[in-house]
Amino acid sequence: MDTLLIALDLLGTFVFAISGATVGVRNRLDLFGVLVLSFAAATSGGIMRDLLIGATPPVALVNWSYLVVACLAGLLTFRWFADIERLRNPVQVFDAMGLALFAVSGALKAIDFGLGPIAATLLGMLTGIGGGIARDVLVARTPVIFQAELYAVAAMAGAATVVAGHWLGWPAMPAVVVGAALCFGLRYMAIRHGWRLPVAQPRDS
Amino acid sequence: MDTLLIALDLLGTFVFAISGATVGVRNRLDLFGVLVLSFAAATSGGIMRDLLIGATPPVALVNWSYLVVACLAGLLTFRWFADIERLRNPVQVFDAMGLALFAVSGALKAIDFGLGPIAATLLGMLTGIGGGIARDVLVARTPVIFQAELYAVAAMAGAATVVAGHWLGWPAMPAVVVGAALCFGLRYMAIRHGWRLPVAQPRDS
Amino acid sequence: MDTLLIALDLLGTFVFAISGATVGVRNRLDLFGVLVLSFAAATSGGIMRDLLIGATPPVALVNWSYLVVACLAGLLTFRWFADIERLRNPVQVFDAMGLALFAVSGALKAIDFGLGPIAATLLGMLTGIGGGIARDVLVARTPVIFQAELYAVAAMAGAATVVAGHWLGWPAMPAVVVGAALCFGLRYMAIRHGWRLPVAQPRDS
Repeated sequence: MDTLLIALDLLGTFVFAISGATVGVRNRLDLFGVLVLSFAAATSGGIMRDLLIGATPPVALVNWSYLVVACLAGLLTFRWFADIERLRNPVQVFDAMGLALFAVSGALKAIDFGLGPIAATLLGMLTGIGGGIARDVLVARTPVIFQAELYAVAAMAGAATVVAGHWLGWPAMPAVVVGAALCFGLRYMAIRHGWRLPVAQPRDS
Repeated sequence: MDTLLIALDLLGTFVFAISGATVGVRNRLDLFGVLVLSFAAATSGGIMRDLLIGATPPVALVNWSYLVVACLAGLLTFRWFADIERLRNPVQVFDAMGLALFAVSGALKAIDFGLGPIAATLLGMLTGIGGGIARDVLVARTPVIFQAELYAVAAMAGAATVVAGHWLGWPAMPAVVVGAALCFGLRYMAIRHGWRLPVAQPRDS
Repeated sequence: MDTLLIALDLLGTFVFAISGATVGVRNRLDLFGVLVLSFAAATSGGIMRDLLIGATPPVALVNWSYLVVACLAGLLTFRWFADIERLRNPVQVFDAMGLALFAVSGALKAIDFGLGPIAATLLGMLTGIGGGIARDVLVARTPVIFQAELYAVAAMAGAATVVAGHWLGWPAMPAVVVGAALCFGLRYMAIRHGWRLPVAQPRDS
């Protein structure tokens, strides 16, 4: 399970770092700012999870692969930003992939550390959405996850699938694949079809 | 003391979650965003406290009551926002109640974990103001606690009362009641009468 | 090494607290808000470092000297803001001094806790830039460190010097002096001469 966790984490790190770097370039940060934002977007969710379960120092600081992968993604984005932009909605698609990978790996790790099903689901969701929250807070905007199409819901669904699989005694791999597919599929369909949760009416009219 | 701590925490959770949900609805977040903001406003102070004293995983994640109470408050606010708005300044009054409850329960828990009087007072204050800070940072505005009428001062007074009571050998209950009443009273009177701390003059004129 | 760590930390605390208080006064926070921002700017980097290496409760909460020094700096700035403003670019110079002191002390402490060279360098950098990030996030602006002249680069250079010195078997003091001087010098020259890292072009034109 450890190798699986690390592989998922590094792949998620790469795609989230691209999303962080994209936001950084758009906000006209300098090269180092872009790299910091890549690293923050890529690792904040996992770092929050590790702090909350008491797994210090967080793996993203100790294992230098995360830094290398995040910086590589940041440099690629910095250099070929225009090309990456030309792809359709790259931030959203990369976000959806990172979201799915982190939600399932975060839930897996929380289970490994002995947390119960509700806490593990919440921590999986946080691992998925934490990077996006940190990225947006760092450029002083309301996190898109609070207004976007089924963003946190998809992360929670993915994490809950892994947790349910664990409770049903499934091996880790199929639960991870189903959970990640569910999360990515839900988010992708929501983007495509504009599925949104209801928004309250601040004033009655 | 444990039962007292949990009861205070859950009551504070409910009222802070309403304040978080109100800000979420006003910023036109979707249903899930409103629930996340409810949970964040309600539990961030306690989670920060638990991280800082090394009590991981934080009780707000492990004990599902916090999640249920925060989501319930969020759903009620989402559904009946107009009614809640019609009450006079509901955010401020709920904030004052949550502030008082969290400041005293935070100080109590820090004492339980063996921290000294200054650290326990600071942690009580942080437990009180942390949720409001997280709530406001998440919608990208300067936390109102930095400009509001005696906000953090009231939290500090409540926490300091509990700490002083502990040092004087009082039983926990009267110190908690006096501390919470002092905090709420101070904040409420400050809102009513517009008591404010001085603001520096950025330019001499 | 402990005395050295604490002396560096308290000096850095004082200068960072001035920078936090200056931002607080400019944003027209009240007296308490200015003190909270002083304390946050002065201690957030160190608190993040302590949380990440598992050194809870963080020294900035347990040792009341940090609170006293930060509040003293905040009060001085609050009272004599106009005079402090009249000095040339005080925020930037104080920032540079705090940055250098915190970067080296943060790296030292991470080494003390047994972290490897890359993690210790990152944690030294974070100790240096964390306070500035918290300060700016709390007044809802994009942290200046992401756009400023060689800000985080300077912190990383200072921390890396200390780490390299440790790996080469130098005694702590010369590595600390060289690292802090390198960080401050790099940042100061960058401000004077407008050295900046490249910024990506969001659109090809």
